[in-house]
Amino acid sequence: MAPMTDLVTFGETMLRLSPPRGERLETTRDLTVQAGGAESNVAVGAARLGADARWLSKLPDSPLGRRIVTELRSHGVRPDVAWADADASRVGTYYLEHGGEPRGTNVIYDRADAAITTVEPDELPTDAVAEAEWFHTTGITPALSETTAETTTALLRTAGEAGTTRSFDLNYRAKLWDPETARAAYEELFEHVDTLFVPRRDAREVLDREGGAVEIAHGLATEFGFDTVVVTRGLEGAVALHDGSVYEQDVYEAETFDAIGTGDAFVAGFVAERLRGGDLPAALRWGSATAALKRTTDGDLAVTTRAEVRDVIEGEGGIDR
Amino acid sequence: MAPMTDLVTFGETMLRLSPPRGERLETTRDLTVQAGGAESNVAVGAARLGADARWLSKLPDSPLGRRIVTELRSHGVRPDVAWADADASRVGTYYLEHGGEPRGTNVIYDRADAAITTVEPDELPTDAVAEAEWFHTTGITPALSETTAETTTALLRTAGEAGTTRSFDLNYRAKLWDPETARAAYEELFEHVDTLFVPRRDAREVLDREGGAVEIAHGLATEFGFDTVVVTRGLEGAVALHDGSVYEQDVYEAETFDAIGTGDAFVAGFVAERLRGGDLPAALRWGSATAALKRTTDGDLAVTTRAEVRDVIEGEGGIDR
Amino acid sequence: MAPMTDLVTFGETMLRLSPPRGERLETTRDLTVQAGGAESNVAVGAARLGADARWLSKLPDSPLGRRIVTELRSHGVRPDVAWADADASRVGTYYLEHGGEPRGTNVIYDRADAAITTVEPDELPTDAVAEAEWFHTTGITPALSETTAETTTALLRTAGEAGTTRSFDLNYRAKLWDPETARAAYEELFEHVDTLFVPRRDAREVLDREGGAVEIAHGLATEFGFDTVVVTRGLEGAVALHDGSVYEQDVYEAETFDAIGTGDAFVAGFVAERLRGGDLPAALRWGSATAALKRTTDGDLAVTTRAEVRDVIEGEGGIDR
Amino acid sequence: MAPMTDLVTFGETMLRLSPPRGERLETTRDLTVQAGGAESNVAVGAARLGADARWLSKLPDSPLGRRIVTELRSHGVRPDVAWADADASRVGTYYLEHGGEPRGTNVIYDRADAAITTVEPDELPTDAVAEAEWFHTTGITPALSETTAETTTALLRTAGEAGTTRSFDLNYRAKLWDPETARAAYEELFEHVDTLFVPRRDAREVLDREGGAVEIAHGLATEFGFDTVVVTRGLEGAVALHDGSVYEQDVYEAETFDAIGTGDAFVAGFVAERLRGGDLPAALRWGSATAALKRTTDGDLAVTTRAEVRDVIEGEGGIDR
Amino acid sequence: MAPMTDLVTFGETMLRLSPPRGERLETTRDLTVQAGGAESNVAVGAARLGADARWLSKLPDSPLGRRIVTELRSHGVRPDVAWADADASRVGTYYLEHGGEPRGTNVIYDRADAAITTVEPDELPTDAVAEAEWFHTTGITPALSETTAETTTALLRTAGEAGTTRSFDLNYRAKLWDPETARAAYEELFEHVDTLFVPRRDAREVLDREGGAVEIAHGLATEFGFDTVVVTRGLEGAVALHDGSVYEQDVYEAETFDAIGTGDAFVAGFVAERLRGGDLPAALRWGSATAALKRTTDGDLAVTTRAEVRDVIEGEGGIDR
Amino acid sequence: MAPMTDLVTFGETMLRLSPPRGERLETTRDLTVQAGGAESNVAVGAARLGADARWLSKLPDSPLGRRIVTELRSHGVRPDVAWADADASRVGTYYLEHGGEPRGTNVIYDRADAAITTVEPDELPTDAVAEAEWFHTTGITPALSETTAETTTALLRTAGEAGTTRSFDLNYRAKLWDPETARAAYEELFEHVDTLFVPRRDAREVLDREGGAVEIAHGLATEFGFDTVVVTRGLEGAVALHDGSVYEQDVYEAETFDAIGTGDAFVAGFVAERLRGGDLPAALRWGSATAALKRTTDGDLAVTTRAEVRDVIEGEGGIDR
Repeated sequence: MAPMTDLVTFGETMLRLSPPRGERLETTRDLTVQAGGAESNVAVGAARLGADARWLSKLPDSPLGRRIVTELRSHGVRPDVAWADADASRVGTYYLEHGGEPRGTNVIYDRADAAITTVEPDELPTDAVAEAEWFHTTGITPALSETTAETTTALLRTAGEAGTTRSFDLNYRAKLWDPETARAAYEELFEHVDTLFVPRRDAREVLDREGGAVEIAHGLATEFGFDTVVVTRGLEGAVALHDGSVYEQDVYEAETFDAIGTGDAFVAGFVAERLRGGDLPAALRWGSATAALKRTTDGDLAVTTRAEVRDVIEGEGGIDR
Repeated sequence: MAPMTDLVTFGETMLRLSPPRGERLETTRDLTVQAGGAESNVAVGAARLGADARWLSKLPDSPLGRRIVTELRSHGVRPDVAWADADASRVGTYYLEHGGEPRGTNVIYDRADAAITTVEPDELPTDAVAEAEWFHTTGITPALSETTAETTTALLRTAGEAGTTRSFDLNYRAKLWDPETARAAYEELFEHVDTLFVPRRDAREVLDREGGAVEIAHGLATEFGFDTVVVTRGLEGAVALHDGSVYEQDVYEAETFDAIGTGDAFVAGFVAERLRGGDLPAALRWGSATAALKRTTDGDLAVTTRAEVRDVIEGEGGIDR
Repeated sequence: MAPMTDLVTFGETMLRLSPPRGERLETTRDLTVQAGGAESNVAVGAARLGADARWLSKLPDSPLGRRIVTELRSHGVRPDVAWADADASRVGTYYLEHGGEPRGTNVIYDRADAAITTVEPDELPTDAVAEAEWFHTTGITPALSETTAETTTALLRTAGEAGTTRSFDLNYRAKLWDPETARAAYEELFEHVDTLFVPRRDAREVLDREGGAVEIAHGLATEFGFDTVVVTRGLEGAVALHDGSVYEQDVYEAETFDAIGTGDAFVAGFVAERLRGGDLPAALRWGSATAALKRTTDGDLAVTTRAEVRDVIEGEGGIDR
Repeated sequence: MAPMTDLVTFGETMLRLSPPRGERLETTRDLTVQAGGAESNVAVGAARLGADARWLSKLPDSPLGRRIVTELRSHGVRPDVAWADADASRVGTYYLEHGGEPRGTNVIYDRADAAITTVEPDELPTDAVAEAEWFHTTGITPALSETTAETTTALLRTAGEAGTTRSFDLNYRAKLWDPETARAAYEELFEHVDTLFVPRRDAREVLDREGGAVEIAHGLATEFGFDTVVVTRGLEGAVALHDGSVYEQDVYEAETFDAIGTGDAFVAGFVAERLRGGDLPAALRWGSATAALKRTTDGDLAVTTRAEVRDVIEGEGGIDR
Repeated sequence: MAPMTDLVTFGETMLRLSPPRGERLETTRDLTVQAGGAESNVAVGAARLGADARWLSKLPDSPLGRRIVTELRSHGVRPDVAWADADASRVGTYYLEHGGEPRGTNVIYDRADAAITTVEPDELPTDAVAEAEWFHTTGITPALSETTAETTTALLRTAGEAGTTRSFDLNYRAKLWDPETARAAYEELFEHVDTLFVPRRDAREVLDREGGAVEIAHGLATEFGFDTVVVTRGLEGAVALHDGSVYEQDVYEAETFDAIGTGDAFVAGFVAERLRGGDLPAALRWGSATAALKRTTDGDLAVTTRAEVRDVIEGEGGIDR
Repeated sequence: MAPMTDLVTFGETMLRLSPPRGERLETTRDLTVQAGGAESNVAVGAARLGADARWLSKLPDSPLGRRIVTELRSHGVRPDVAWADADASRVGTYYLEHGGEPRGTNVIYDRADAAITTVEPDELPTDAVAEAEWFHTTGITPALSETTAETTTALLRTAGEAGTTRSFDLNYRAKLWDPETARAAYEELFEHVDTLFVPRRDAREVLDREGGAVEIAHGLATEFGFDTVVVTRGLEGAVALHDGSVYEQDVYEAETFDAIGTGDAFVAGFVAERLRGGDLPAALRWGSATAALKRTTDGDLAVTTRAEVRDVIEGEGGIDR
């Protein structure tokens, strides 16, 4: 029998290209390259916190495609990649320019027609999904193409049939689709989801929900039958509804070096702790602490350790003498 | 007939050499090179906001002189340079060491005998000044040498005769001359100036003015017949007097990456908006917003866009999803 | 009457992204960004050698599109860009990994669906072409899309009607089309071309020519009525046929830092000298010397000066005491 | 049943710290950090060429220990590390200063008392060795401490009992022991070795062999019963003796960027090809080509691909159009 | 007669290796190398403030040992180093990863068996100690080895006999010894100390003192007969007891770029001012201002000047016009 | 009595600013800063080879002036600097762009009116010259200003009166004066010189000498009474005439990373060996070997060691196992 995997995620990972602090994309000569993608961010974060994590995707069989795999693998994630013809496919790319008040951080996506937009279930090791304890994907994946939407549904269905816990982070991207289209797609997927992560803002603007986080969570859980709904509220922290109980979690204050990937780090910490048997409040703490640590480092990834997360939760830090 | 230019500026541009953050000039091994000079800063800022801008100066015909032209041109400014013999002239240089409380930012000028100190009107396309809508220079230029002082006067006179709006930013530099000498020189030039930009501190310490910004503006306008006086007050914002009316403008809060060039960015935004037909309050908003954006980026230049300035004025920002 | 332009080029310019020497794309964390494209390389090279040069293209109205314009403008080229909607278009990109025997230099194109693929003549200042002395484009442009092929024909036609000299560099790219398709397209364009630049290898493999460079030149000139044919032969130098005379030109030896852009530098030097009234042998010398200088510097562009080219031709160099 | 592994290697991996080219350790301010160690170099090289490779070692459970694992994992190697107490152990380190005639490349080891010096067999997954097709270690490992010498013997014995092919690269290090001590230790291990890699110089100076490479190979094979002996001769290429036949292999010429790790790359290519069923001549070609590619890139590791090695063997290269 | 030295310090200096801001040791590829050690930090700080300072230590006679000397010498310190055999000794090293809330700054020492652990008095120029006005060492040195503890005692004794003022900074390092062992060692040394610097936290946790800073100072002075006791309290400033009088000193606020070395900078400023004849309050001001300036720059060292310290004390700063 | 110094040199040291390899000054954004000056290059080279070396000069009392002192001191040289008013003086600067055939290395001096041009003997510790064994200066110093010419004469006279050996390196700089003026100045100084270093080219073009190196040496020695004449001939090596005997020295082949400072390294090695009692042939070997090592490293300085020079002379090198 194949070994059980803790976590499988599915989605696009891009090359993230960013100029040095204080420089503009329009004039820079230097770009830092890193791998970034919501689902692989979660896989990396969880793997670093002890989960055995795999990540499914499709990439060109080129140095650029392998560049992504190389970085993810370094953090202990096992990539399961459908390799596309290098000459007939491309890697999604995004450019990130760090801002500073009153200039916003600027993200420019160049992801159209990335290799993943053609990924079909039979190119992927769907067994891995069935054998995993947890499957995670986000609302970005179905937005990439009709094919990825169908593959997302197929994988969620596979997971459901196998009893794999399925989580879904709404992650609405206004550059990929409009709220109405997105909402329709989300709602079709919701029946296959056990745990929903949703920013309060997206719940309001995309899912047309009203009221506070608790009210939103109740509404969604009732309507779609989620086992767990986690509503994130930026600096106000998160609220979770699970088995009829409501749990609140504050954010841990952080000196932000790079905010990108904070939400994925939250999911990573949450899922890693659930996989180790932690209860909801513990999972929220792990999510929140992992997110805080993520903010202190460069890049999409939560490059941290169990010990560091534990120190944050227990309120320890500072310089070691 | 030659095409109308929006803006012509005249002055020295130097090579700005700065070590990495946290490093001292005394021990550094790395310097970043950028072009910096009050008048070309204004030309670049205005050009980026849509103005057709030219910049008049004198430089050695060497890689170092061309280094400056190369950078200015990249932002759309048209440099009109009197090229001096490379072996018999030099480029002005300034070293900038970023500070941090309680250590001040340190600027070391090495600009004596720069090529511009010998510039005479007949080396410059004075037609350009006559054909422009707006001519701008600063109180640094006449401080460089007697020759630059005379050329400044000549160009202002040319502008005045042609009906070109003339603005002047006091920009007192204690390392170039003492307050008394400066004051005498300024006052001779004032008769050729329509719009005066003056920091409140300089108004007090160099022009011997007393009272608040409004009082200073009234006094100067009355005495020298300025069309517009803009008094800047650092973090307290600016005050403008125009046609007998007083306008106040707050600063837009900014996370400062590099404060050098803030004042020039203000002038650039102000002039660019005036050139597009904006009224005084609009010009003040554009000046203030451009200045705030400048503070978030490295270097003397306001590397920004009309859309970004508009977003600041309209209070929008943040990460684009 | 609008001022006469020396040179107009038309084509795609990409962002060139390259890791440091000795590093692989597959593992690098740092990329240098530069602008690169055959036709803008020629415009930059010629502008630096004194030509008044414009470059026509289409780019997204985004920091990435402006990044390209910024760099070209810095060298004195005037870009005439049709700006595409930033959200609905992309910039062509290419990744360059420097090799070293026995590992080849690796170029990965990510240029599909770049903004230029939709460029139509009425988006471009065709007047500029008509008013120019010289118009240059390459065999890459018609390979990008049917639309660019048609626009190329239209611009060549406009140039021809206006008496503008038209040059064309074959520049066959195997990743864009196959030899047969390319040949057919080239041959349709040839009737609109005065000066043809063609590598001997492409003449053989794509145009099905046989024999040596001189024989190839004669054959092409006879068949298509070119005024001038320049056949380049790598390290063996170039051969030109003009008015029935044959001219040979050796390469100037160079310590190669970066070979990309050598052919474009050759064209730039050749055209710049022709525009100044130089005869064929002089133009070949300028082309060859500019190409040698290009090889010594990083990037696609021939960042050099008239004085440096002259020194190479006259055999001077070395350290200045 | 556990899945079969292709290759297991065992040995120390250090942090390699090197200043930029042209700078001296004595004055540098910047160091590049990379992972380097003969046995993990082989594992990485082989993994990149398609082998399923594991690497056994011992490291402190600290960011520095994990730094090494992170890099090896990125290339697809599965590290099996005995984690030592972070406060009571250290990572071996080596400083590498690139030379240039007449200044030699300078290597400074700071590896005394590294965590691996205490590694015992029961800390390692010896099953992995037994289940692998091939086990590789080098003459560095037994030189580190008595404990590593004993563990080396134990692992070779385990491999031998399980029928795993055992290879050994002599890799004499004068800074670790003297020739006599080394020779005695080697000779005790030789009975457990199937394939010996030995530089001709070491064969002469350490193993006291005389004559040419073929004679040396025969002598060693006869005396110690090796299945295969590969004698490397620097730029003169390698000679292999196998089943009584002698095979010669030239080096592929290379533009050397970094020579460190060349020998390990040779072993990696050789073993990877043997594991895929290649015969001796093929393995020598793969070894030699992988070594040549290694020389073109920075760092200890042969960051290459099967396609690139194949291109070298088939004599293809150069810029892709 | 040999010339009088102002200050002699004795202790270990390490290579400090730190990744860029926002990067983790576990994944970084770049390290900055700097010299760092409590006693040489004091020597450098004092030398830069005008003292003639020497520093005694032991290092391997290798590029790494010389790397340290090179940097210290650049600041005007005269190193008196006992050179150890390069092949049989090592340089202490420490890795520094800058933190950011909630992630602490991480220091990893790799200093076991550094060359200094074998230093004996007769390897050092003990005359220098006798001829100096002031001798300084810290509680780190005796913790390194029994030999360094004995040498520390010997040097303090030599200083005492010669009438040289002896200062001692407690500098407890939990990674080197436990509080009880440390306390016993400290108390043996205290009889040879005139001026004690002690953080309030160490006084409590290691010396078992109770109460506030003043009470601690009185207790220590009474029990051990110190001439001066300076108790530092982090952001609450310092308290000094001298000749029965108590002096308080606030910290000067600082924008912290790098906090490492702040305490040593305080001692450097204090000692430098005492050596110039300043009284206790002046010395406290100089210590505090030097410490504030240190925080604004990268590295262990207080790279500052007398003029800058004076400006801080006098409350001047900001950008020089 | 003050301690005897081995070597005192006198001359200008500049900030050397150079862009990365392959980049042009005209477009670079990064400059490396290093200290460079013929006489301090000699002092550093000799100090590193064991001489007790001092260097006399004049610099502004600013971070830029101290930048130079900081670097020289790091190599063990004792700078004796006359500090000029920071606001009224400047540091000489030179820009260095590395070339590559056929593009020459480009040096741009910006040294006019550097602080040293006003240096007078009474600002310098002339005692140091009198107490030294050897005094060295070059033909650059008297070319800087009349004052430096007079001071050079005064120092040479002081040295002569004290019996200090005086060496002079012709070092003709065409950018500072013409051959006739230079020749006249040199010839006045020659009576104060014991050892003359002169490139064959300068001997011919500036001193109007004819014939080969030996003939030149004889002629100069006869006419001016030099004790030793060393004529350097680039890659053909050096010839020395001493006490009527002629000595030849080949160059040691070197992989050149940076050729600047090669001649100064030669002088440094020569003088260092003479100071240790070596005979002429030994001094020539040391000079030549030091020069070869210099070529392998970045910057003006010969950052090497006695052991490395010895290895070159003895023909040893390569990677240390």
